[in-house]
Amino acid sequence: MIGIFDSGLGGLTVVQEIKKKHANTSFIYLGDTARVPYGTRSPETIRKFAEEDTQFLIDKNVDLIVVACNTVSSLALDVVKRHSSVPVYGVIEPAMSKAIEISENKKIGLVGTRATINSYAYKSVTMRNHASMLVPLIEEGFIKGKEIDLFIARYFAGFIDNVDTLILGCTHYPIIKKEIDKYLKNKINLVDPAVEVVSQISSLISSYESEIVERYYLTDVNARFLETAQMFLGEDITNKTEKITL
Amino acid sequence: MIGIFDSGLGGLTVVQEIKKKHANTSFIYLGDTARVPYGTRSPETIRKFAEEDTQFLIDKNVDLIVVACNTVSSLALDVVKRHSSVPVYGVIEPAMSKAIEISENKKIGLVGTRATINSYAYKSVTMRNHASMLVPLIEEGFIKGKEIDLFIARYFAGFIDNVDTLILGCTHYPIIKKEIDKYLKNKINLVDPAVEVVSQISSLISSYESEIVERYYLTDVNARFLETAQMFLGEDITNKTEKITL
Repeated sequence: MIGIFDSGLGGLTVVQEIKKKHANTSFIYLGDTARVPYGTRSPETIRKFAEEDTQFLIDKNVDLIVVACNTVSSLALDVVKRHSSVPVYGVIEPAMSKAIEISENKKIGLVGTRATINSYAYKSVTMRNHASMLVPLIEEGFIKGKEIDLFIARYFAGFIDNVDTLILGCTHYPIIKKEIDKYLKNKINLVDPAVEVVSQISSLISSYESEIVERYYLTDVNARFLETAQMFLGEDITNKTEKITL
Repeated sequence: MIGIFDSGLGGLTVVQEIKKKHANTSFIYLGDTARVPYGTRSPETIRKFAEEDTQFLIDKNVDLIVVACNTVSSLALDVVKRHSSVPVYGVIEPAMSKAIEISENKKIGLVGTRATINSYAYKSVTMRNHASMLVPLIEEGFIKGKEIDLFIARYFAGFIDNVDTLILGCTHYPIIKKEIDKYLKNKINLVDPAVEVVSQISSLISSYESEIVERYYLTDVNARFLETAQMFLGEDITNKTEKITL
């Protein structure tokens, strides 16, 4: 059974990718919706939260852990590994490898939360920019239209003519991939860490198959969070969701 | 000694008002920056957090508590009162009273977080609208310019010709009061709950004066939070700030 966690609901883009590629896989998802977002907080606080997230999944007897959050993967992957008795996979390494593989001129850009950008965990990028408003905009449903276009222009203009590959370093961003592509006129390769991490663990997934479990644990639940989950996953998870305390 | 708390740093607008009106007053401020924002979370979670915030201030031996947060005042004032051995003041009642007092046609509007709007705690308003993007925009420093203007138009257009008085039901909003006024062409009275709650407790403040204490307790501290604090308060609080755990 796979254990997946994220600061909130953005990590459901990883779940969606797992379900698309491996229809009959058991997994549980932990979203820390009571304390989302992590990307604006200090490294110390992010590491503390990551430790609690990990402990929850270990107590649930998962067989491997996917850190479906760029912020935690950037700042606390060592914490997760230290507190985990099972293999741990973050999104940084697979996304970075893919970007290096497909970039022709090795000029690679990164957009992410402030915490991710400031961590320098994506070592081989040549240009980086936080895109802090994109998470609240996407969570508020501004996924197309003049509002999101205004901020895409603000955050992505600098990459044009400067990189040939761009890592979407936050699990929220693939939701607006079409709008980003449109703004960049499809001239920059976009790397989605959710796709890359699932590709990395693909060989492990089949061997962990057994009785099918699909369960979502959230530290806070309200109608709005369930709507947001549906936006990220493309399906309603209300009946598979349980509120828990860390 | 006054104890003031907020989900994050917006409550510093109440502190600013206290310092403006009562220069030599002792107070401590608690900002739950590790879990901000509250306004998107469930009532149950907001009430749990409010209880922990209250306990912290009581343990610090404050003489009265100001709930400098519209979300907590709307959803958990009873929780704060139950867990407090000292008088408790929220922002709703003074702001609502002021609005009723100055409104000529008794058509009163309210903008606030989703949680505040959905709580119906501001009982006598005739029109309400959440303005969820304003908090992240202000925290990201978009306090003037086309970005904030776009969202002000979106959230405030409905109030024009429908109300003569509007409660700015979130401690962040007074930061962009000038921009709101400009959009509304100064035709709507704006009520700032920070001003009203300080006016309500003014008679108490002088009698609580003693040795001057001014201390800020935050559940998370980083450079960005300290910058945001400076924006709200108009001064640097780094040397008066301490990181604590609730």
